[in-house]
Amino acid sequence: MDVLARAHALEAAGRRVLHLEIGEPDFTAPAPVVEAGMRALRDGRTAYTATLGLLSLREQIAAFYRSRFSVEVPASRIAITSGASGGLLTVAALYVGPGDEILVPDPGYPGYRHFVRAFEGKARALPLSPADDFQPTAAMIEKAWGRRTKGVLLGSPSNPTGTLISAAELARIARLVAKRRGVLIVDEIYQGLVYGADPSTALGLPGEVVVVNSFSKYFCMTGWRLGWVVLPPRAVRGFEKLAQHLFISAPSAAQHAALAAFLPESLAILEQRRSEFARRRDFLVPELKRAGLAIPAEPRGAFYVYADCGGDARRWCLRLLEKETVAATPGIDFGANRTRRFVRFAYTRAMADLEEAAARIRRFAGGAPSA
Amino acid sequence: MDVLARAHALEAAGRRVLHLEIGEPDFTAPAPVVEAGMRALRDGRTAYTATLGLLSLREQIAAFYRSRFSVEVPASRIAITSGASGGLLTVAALYVGPGDEILVPDPGYPGYRHFVRAFEGKARALPLSPADDFQPTAAMIEKAWGRRTKGVLLGSPSNPTGTLISAAELARIARLVAKRRGVLIVDEIYQGLVYGADPSTALGLPGEVVVVNSFSKYFCMTGWRLGWVVLPPRAVRGFEKLAQHLFISAPSAAQHAALAAFLPESLAILEQRRSEFARRRDFLVPELKRAGLAIPAEPRGAFYVYADCGGDARRWCLRLLEKETVAATPGIDFGANRTRRFVRFAYTRAMADLEEAAARIRRFAGGAPSA
Repeated sequence: MDVLARAHALEAAGRRVLHLEIGEPDFTAPAPVVEAGMRALRDGRTAYTATLGLLSLREQIAAFYRSRFSVEVPASRIAITSGASGGLLTVAALYVGPGDEILVPDPGYPGYRHFVRAFEGKARALPLSPADDFQPTAAMIEKAWGRRTKGVLLGSPSNPTGTLISAAELARIARLVAKRRGVLIVDEIYQGLVYGADPSTALGLPGEVVVVNSFSKYFCMTGWRLGWVVLPPRAVRGFEKLAQHLFISAPSAAQHAALAAFLPESLAILEQRRSEFARRRDFLVPELKRAGLAIPAEPRGAFYVYADCGGDARRWCLRLLEKETVAATPGIDFGANRTRRFVRFAYTRAMADLEEAAARIRRFAGGAPSA
Repeated sequence: MDVLARAHALEAAGRRVLHLEIGEPDFTAPAPVVEAGMRALRDGRTAYTATLGLLSLREQIAAFYRSRFSVEVPASRIAITSGASGGLLTVAALYVGPGDEILVPDPGYPGYRHFVRAFEGKARALPLSPADDFQPTAAMIEKAWGRRTKGVLLGSPSNPTGTLISAAELARIARLVAKRRGVLIVDEIYQGLVYGADPSTALGLPGEVVVVNSFSKYFCMTGWRLGWVVLPPRAVRGFEKLAQHLFISAPSAAQHAALAAFLPESLAILEQRRSEFARRRDFLVPELKRAGLAIPAEPRGAFYVYADCGGDARRWCLRLLEKETVAATPGIDFGANRTRRFVRFAYTRAMADLEEAAARIRRFAGGAPSA
């Protein structure tokens, strides 16, 4: 937060800041989506929708799971939400009561803790290790599971580490959580953004599995505020009631627009962008290593590199910003598990910016006394 | 809820239902707003905004308070939210802890209870009387205030009653709540929709006063999911942090579009619609009385008439729907205080529909055995 404030101050003073701290694609929605959104506005399709969202969009998502992931998910289990945030919030409201414990990854997306705490639950951190690709393991969860534990929340690809959980480990976790009669909430917000691997889903695993997804990242629709949740059949009615009270419905024009996100021409654009993100990752990872940073777990998804700067990362980030006007995010934003030495770099800017940022980071790290 | 389900079933079977149950204007956003929204989409202004919203929109709202209500509210106290729902939710998250009590009107918008309960608070009902225009009084609040009471939430114009609170009574309430060091949350979602009176605001009253507003009703932007909250200065930072975690930001294109809602040409359209709502009210109220329904408190705002049907209102509504395919909302949706005899009629359909609905209601009520 102080890095962000200082970056804004530098920009206000006329300096050019290279933004490697931004967790948002630099691409806007594909043209067919924008056009569909404009048509929806023009045609006045802007009334409240059903709380669970447009049936046509829910069916479209079901078809997407079928064609891309070979998973059968009926539209009746899919709820359209006000961003993944709205989904996570409603899921937390549904599953978390006062004193209930949810196991969350550390490092991990800070929102996880906040959603659990908002409903007076306890977010218990699972300290992750680079040896496990910064992902939880069934063994870890078994050890951490306590009397008040209600479930596990994990994200793959992960923010901030960009790492993926293996299908085998996730299946072990699902079986364990099912045995404990808990809920497994999987954040698949960065689902489409994996490199050198195929996107995957937790759907189809046994037990009470809830999947949260979003149109923000792969589909590049951040400010449209649209996401979805896939629920176990018996949770749908409870989710709907809560969402009805807490949100009424997700933005309407965005829902109509999102229908066009699954058109072949949109998907072609998005796959091209995925290649571009891969190209950026393939550039940035070796550059950061060359600058002397350690990347103990290979990032294979999202648009983040989580690197060990060898010292106090908050100080490192502030000095990098002052000296080279490159902004990055200190690890402490993502938890307490050795996060003090880590920095999250986002590759959500064009190659030219990344090249310049990398040169500056190398100059900075090469010339910097060890922090 | 069963009325709504039955109405949908009748429509699915090809019957034409006259909808007097819908809490949403039948008008879409004024043309300048739609055009601004389309421009924002076309120009790619669809990234996340700051959590508190576009500064230009916050300033526009501040200017609106100045010009229309002669109240000075700095933009720094205004937060743009994902609908009034997002505002109420964040306000509840900010002020309500487990066991905290918030006094809420009965009858009143059911969301009030749900937002308080979501954060493990207790929504304590204030049983309202037609003698007080179905609005809380300072005396009532003083009597109901207990050890765990943290504040009061009220709405004016009210859903479901359409009644207004008097400026004098609201000031008395504000002084009382301030004395008790509580928070006064005023739902002004229907603010612009008053008839035969000027719109008013709780802003400027003493103490911890929070005002929730929306672009949904007066501005006819329901599915855009945009609202705002005016906060006491010291609450802004806490609200911002919560909203950052729970929502990230409100829909972006909707924010750009809403800037155009304050243009003179938009306001002229909206004032014309206000006249149309007034015309509908002036038609519907005497018609319902002629049908034998009692309207013990004159509705002067929103787009609702709250009428006593003289018997079991749920049965009455279901039979009205079966016999005359007119849908209305039973009072029990809005609380437990003599709500069983009441029906909420919304005048969110064109005059032709209202005329036909009124004729059917008169035929039904005239010919119906007392329920």
